[in-house]
Amino acid sequence: MDRRFIVEKSKKQNEDVKYPERQFYFPAQIVETFIAKGESHSARPLNRQFILSILAGAFVTFGAIFSVLIALGVETQGIHNLLAGIGFVTGYAIVFISGAILFTEVNVLLPTYILQRKFWIPKNILKFWVVCYLGNVIGALLVGALVVASGSLPPEFYSELTTYTEHKMKFLSNGTLGWFQILVSGIIANWLIGMAAFLATAARDLTGKVLATTLPVIIFVAGNFQHSVANMGYFSTSFIHGSEYSWIEFLFFNLVPASIGNLIGGGILVALTFTYAFKEEIDVNRLPKEEAK
Amino acid sequence: MDRRFIVEKSKKQNEDVKYPERQFYFPAQIVETFIAKGESHSARPLNRQFILSILAGAFVTFGAIFSVLIALGVETQGIHNLLAGIGFVTGYAIVFISGAILFTEVNVLLPTYILQRKFWIPKNILKFWVVCYLGNVIGALLVGALVVASGSLPPEFYSELTTYTEHKMKFLSNGTLGWFQILVSGIIANWLIGMAAFLATAARDLTGKVLATTLPVIIFVAGNFQHSVANMGYFSTSFIHGSEYSWIEFLFFNLVPASIGNLIGGGILVALTFTYAFKEEIDVNRLPKEEAK
Amino acid sequence: MDRRFIVEKSKKQNEDVKYPERQFYFPAQIVETFIAKGESHSARPLNRQFILSILAGAFVTFGAIFSVLIALGVETQGIHNLLAGIGFVTGYAIVFISGAILFTEVNVLLPTYILQRKFWIPKNILKFWVVCYLGNVIGALLVGALVVASGSLPPEFYSELTTYTEHKMKFLSNGTLGWFQILVSGIIANWLIGMAAFLATAARDLTGKVLATTLPVIIFVAGNFQHSVANMGYFSTSFIHGSEYSWIEFLFFNLVPASIGNLIGGGILVALTFTYAFKEEIDVNRLPKEEAK
Amino acid sequence: MDRRFIVEKSKKQNEDVKYPERQFYFPAQIVETFIAKGESHSARPLNRQFILSILAGAFVTFGAIFSVLIALGVETQGIHNLLAGIGFVTGYAIVFISGAILFTEVNVLLPTYILQRKFWIPKNILKFWVVCYLGNVIGALLVGALVVASGSLPPEFYSELTTYTEHKMKFLSNGTLGWFQILVSGIIANWLIGMAAFLATAARDLTGKVLATTLPVIIFVAGNFQHSVANMGYFSTSFIHGSEYSWIEFLFFNLVPASIGNLIGGGILVALTFTYAFKEEIDVNRLPKEEAK
Amino acid sequence: MDRRFIVEKSKKQNEDVKYPERQFYFPAQIVETFIAKGESHSARPLNRQFILSILAGAFVTFGAIFSVLIALGVETQGIHNLLAGIGFVTGYAIVFISGAILFTEVNVLLPTYILQRKFWIPKNILKFWVVCYLGNVIGALLVGALVVASGSLPPEFYSELTTYTEHKMKFLSNGTLGWFQILVSGIIANWLIGMAAFLATAARDLTGKVLATTLPVIIFVAGNFQHSVANMGYFSTSFIHGSEYSWIEFLFFNLVPASIGNLIGGGILVALTFTYAFKEEIDVNRLPKEEAK
Repeated sequence: MDRRFIVEKSKKQNEDVKYPERQFYFPAQIVETFIAKGESHSARPLNRQFILSILAGAFVTFGAIFSVLIALGVETQGIHNLLAGIGFVTGYAIVFISGAILFTEVNVLLPTYILQRKFWIPKNILKFWVVCYLGNVIGALLVGALVVASGSLPPEFYSELTTYTEHKMKFLSNGTLGWFQILVSGIIANWLIGMAAFLATAARDLTGKVLATTLPVIIFVAGNFQHSVANMGYFSTSFIHGSEYSWIEFLFFNLVPASIGNLIGGGILVALTFTYAFKEEIDVNRLPKEEAK
Repeated sequence: MDRRFIVEKSKKQNEDVKYPERQFYFPAQIVETFIAKGESHSARPLNRQFILSILAGAFVTFGAIFSVLIALGVETQGIHNLLAGIGFVTGYAIVFISGAILFTEVNVLLPTYILQRKFWIPKNILKFWVVCYLGNVIGALLVGALVVASGSLPPEFYSELTTYTEHKMKFLSNGTLGWFQILVSGIIANWLIGMAAFLATAARDLTGKVLATTLPVIIFVAGNFQHSVANMGYFSTSFIHGSEYSWIEFLFFNLVPASIGNLIGGGILVALTFTYAFKEEIDVNRLPKEEAK
Repeated sequence: MDRRFIVEKSKKQNEDVKYPERQFYFPAQIVETFIAKGESHSARPLNRQFILSILAGAFVTFGAIFSVLIALGVETQGIHNLLAGIGFVTGYAIVFISGAILFTEVNVLLPTYILQRKFWIPKNILKFWVVCYLGNVIGALLVGALVVASGSLPPEFYSELTTYTEHKMKFLSNGTLGWFQILVSGIIANWLIGMAAFLATAARDLTGKVLATTLPVIIFVAGNFQHSVANMGYFSTSFIHGSEYSWIEFLFFNLVPASIGNLIGGGILVALTFTYAFKEEIDVNRLPKEEAK
Repeated sequence: MDRRFIVEKSKKQNEDVKYPERQFYFPAQIVETFIAKGESHSARPLNRQFILSILAGAFVTFGAIFSVLIALGVETQGIHNLLAGIGFVTGYAIVFISGAILFTEVNVLLPTYILQRKFWIPKNILKFWVVCYLGNVIGALLVGALVVASGSLPPEFYSELTTYTEHKMKFLSNGTLGWFQILVSGIIANWLIGMAAFLATAARDLTGKVLATTLPVIIFVAGNFQHSVANMGYFSTSFIHGSEYSWIEFLFFNLVPASIGNLIGGGILVALTFTYAFKEEIDVNRLPKEEAK
Repeated sequence: MDRRFIVEKSKKQNEDVKYPERQFYFPAQIVETFIAKGESHSARPLNRQFILSILAGAFVTFGAIFSVLIALGVETQGIHNLLAGIGFVTGYAIVFISGAILFTEVNVLLPTYILQRKFWIPKNILKFWVVCYLGNVIGALLVGALVVASGSLPPEFYSELTTYTEHKMKFLSNGTLGWFQILVSGIIANWLIGMAAFLATAARDLTGKVLATTLPVIIFVAGNFQHSVANMGYFSTSFIHGSEYSWIEFLFFNLVPASIGNLIGGGILVALTFTYAFKEEIDVNRLPKEEAK
């Protein structure tokens, strides 16, 4: 057969070939979704914001508890890190799918939204930020209280939990340096959580969302980085059961620097970088209305 | 090349970019599905309700048995917890996909439905609740009886099962406190099972449904929380094979408080919270008719 | 901002929200598919039925062999059970996707079909049942013969296989009781295999089908329940390599009671229960024609 | 409420229920795809066939190397078998998705194509078969050479590789019997590889394709069956690094019988069986043109 | 019933059977996407290229760190290889989904684009290549600096990291041969990374993209091949914490040869081979505009 003929025929046939549709969001579309979500979340009535924030704190605490439970007694450090990471993923995945509102996600949504505005931050945004933070704390306390009250977990759980809280508080002995180490650690943690929210938004089905959540979350857990809401979960359970640390110590030498770090990490390393990088492609007006939900 | 030109061109090109469709349900749509399902389940003829409830009890019992079988002899506590959790997931996933009717799912569906109604609970709802509970018990007994009669499981299974039942009954020695501990444990268990139903409804394909079921179920199993139907599965098999506990003990010092806790957890922590949080977006009339199935 | 206004706006916006389409079959649709498949399988020319039955017997035997190979030397009983289960899943998944015809699937398809008919079972159905059974036997023998002839498997495989066959034949020493134990075990096995076919039909893509097959199959393997075709696989390989048991023993004290149990389990616990439970919703005339394939 | 009314209403409602679309190919459609692919592959210019065959040989060799690397030092035989299988899957999955041309896949495509033709095999088909085989050899040598030249792999890799080649050559000591054992082993291997191609074609998305490839490939690796291209991968790397065997020994006492077995397995047990079984449903003219790619 | 009638009927029914749509890209479509992406990336403003390159360097470094963390203390070599591979996948998957720009991906995109052009390489392409490389370096340094500053990782991490860097630098003692070994190792690494980009482009949803990324990445990590950006990640963290090597040594005896090898591997073994093999089918004008993003 003549080669030229084959090529001709092949070129012709190519026109029949379809381009299957993309089933994921491009980065610019993810940023648009963040903007829309930041706006719609802030506009919600306070009590709705509050209840969804409580749920997020609760689910992350369940994740923290599960993470301790499945790494219990695992001595090989790498496997321990991996299992702790997998355990934690469950909590975040539940948050992202159920519509619960997480401080560290909000740290990405709101700055992305604010970066689009010409004037300064409206008061309802700041109020939302505070409500969300308090809701997360209360959710963590609620689950901590229920779990301790249920008496269902073995003593090994609580001694392992103590090891976890000691890990998180080990910076106390480093003084001011330690305070800033936690802050830097918080920056990393929220960078990764922010990427989890980013990738989970890229996915258009549930399986993709869970997998997307897994990728960065598993890194931050294995690296023992400081995620304020996760720490709320560990410490609320630990305090209710009895802890060597005081609330004051936890608040000022862990939660405060971790939360500041989280704000910086989410705001600068996720919100700002992607907003800037895809500036020319972002146009929130083209986003389907329903995605603001 | 002129930068302004690039931006213009890029803005133009952006208009071609599609927004791939969402392939999961939003929370409000999940609540709408719960309402519709609660209504349609209650309206079914009694014998259909009953047979589907027997199947759910049976499948959860298969899950309980499998959970014991794959954790057999695993000494590292974390891995044991993880495997037991994975084992149990199989039972729930079969229930959710096959249309079988589970008491702890109903504890979420019915309150969600009831919260939409202006007047008090109609009698057919209460009847359905009872039928479902009894069906689950009978399904658990059926599988327990078949499994013991088949003589297929090794003696190690039954001694491990004894450890499980002892775990569930350890609260006996705590007296009244123990009774309430089980109740609280049941609240947590149904919160998580309810979230499994919630997330599984979010998923629109089978893989997503199984994965969604896994996330919360694996937590509640690892945490040894008290799920009434799972306990029916453990105890029915254990009783038929021979158990140190009496039916009375199991009934009054485990099943009753666990079931009450389950009702509270499902009704308040799932049905009420989400109904309230998404109140303004829930509108069961827009849900496609077929989803009531 | 005025709250009432927000609610109004929100109600309005909700109308834009889409309901992503369901990507799985409802139970009634699964039953309809069973009916249509039962009819179309029975109507096929005998030689096509036969060759597809040989393939099913072959694939299940490959699964049985793989199941032995990956559990080899695993001493923790739970992990052994899990691996054996995973191994077996491969065989079933190949059967369900390739269109091969398995006796234990037919035990669900045909009764479901028959339950729809007003008059008695036509002869071609009974003939199909026999052809399928014989085909499965021959497929198992074919793979057993090829594998032994290839000399590829290590001696450890064959000694482990002996342990498996002893497990399946241990009921010999129980006399008549043992015969009925196998029958009951066969009921459970086909209940679970039937559920595998049920769930695999619910799934609309390949990943879902594999996952759906996994859930119940992994339970029945871990529980050592008696699935006639799996036993054909174990014993055909074992006999060709050399076994302590005679064909007569295997036939009358294992295959016959297991097969009877399989028939009962598939016919009553899957076909009858679901046909009855979804009676009012089943209407085979609405099923897309192609699903009968 | 009146029961008859419910049934009426329910029948009515059923009409709204959709049948979600199938997202996998039926067996007959897979065979049609094989036919179209066999034709289009054969019609390609020789140099394109050649380069795609080199790639397939290369990717399978990467899979073989990875398979050795992740099973290194794993002493429990079952886990070793499982890991080796998983390792190998990577190579095949890359082949199937990248459009590379593998001898053992061609052993299924071409016979399926030929079985549709009324007259004898055209010369370009035989030429394609030879080109593909040589390309696979060269690809295996290329990767073997690069890997050895890179000096990246540890000495443990090469000693483990020696164990693998010894496993594949152990039949040498069985003389003529050994030669035929390899041939039979090759039949089994290509039956399973053929099924991998079969199932991967059933899947319509990438995840499904990878999973479908896994099912049969993992069996053939664990069973140590003789797949000619895999053996090219093992031996090319081994020869370049230094081997106890000569090229002659490998060629005549392994590659030749394995390849003959592969041809028989692919041609008869996959191509012929499915072509025959679905003869009445196969109609290549209805296949969408693009699937011939 | 008359056989001919059945066949007739069956042929008729077949016409109803649908061909479910393909949900993955054909190789030629992947190459077209590479061309379009290569063009659009090069046309981007410099600062956007730069920030996206910093992100890619950062994410790969997170992957490198995670890979060390989950393989920590795992003594079985195969399992260590597997876990290190899985760990690394997270970094690449985040890169591919987030739109970050990786040197080793660009090594495939740009040559593919250049191969389509009649005249020589325009200056903006070379500039982009340099910007991307520098951005990756800076991203690696940024994460390395943050992680060390956070003080979150245990001392075991840093001693394991030392082992990794020693592995990568062991070629120093081989002199010039060692330099070329690294180069060859870099060729292999970018061949595999290139295939990861290739397969990830084939997938149309997020789950498929992650899985597709996994297949080749896991091979290159297990094989300890030299990927310049991964090495940047290892060494940046190691240098900031304190390393036995000097920047000069790393630069000239690792990064330079690895990068040259990467360029060759990406350009020849992926870009050239596939461009050539699918030359007749590639037509960038038919690609949907949006895919250039």
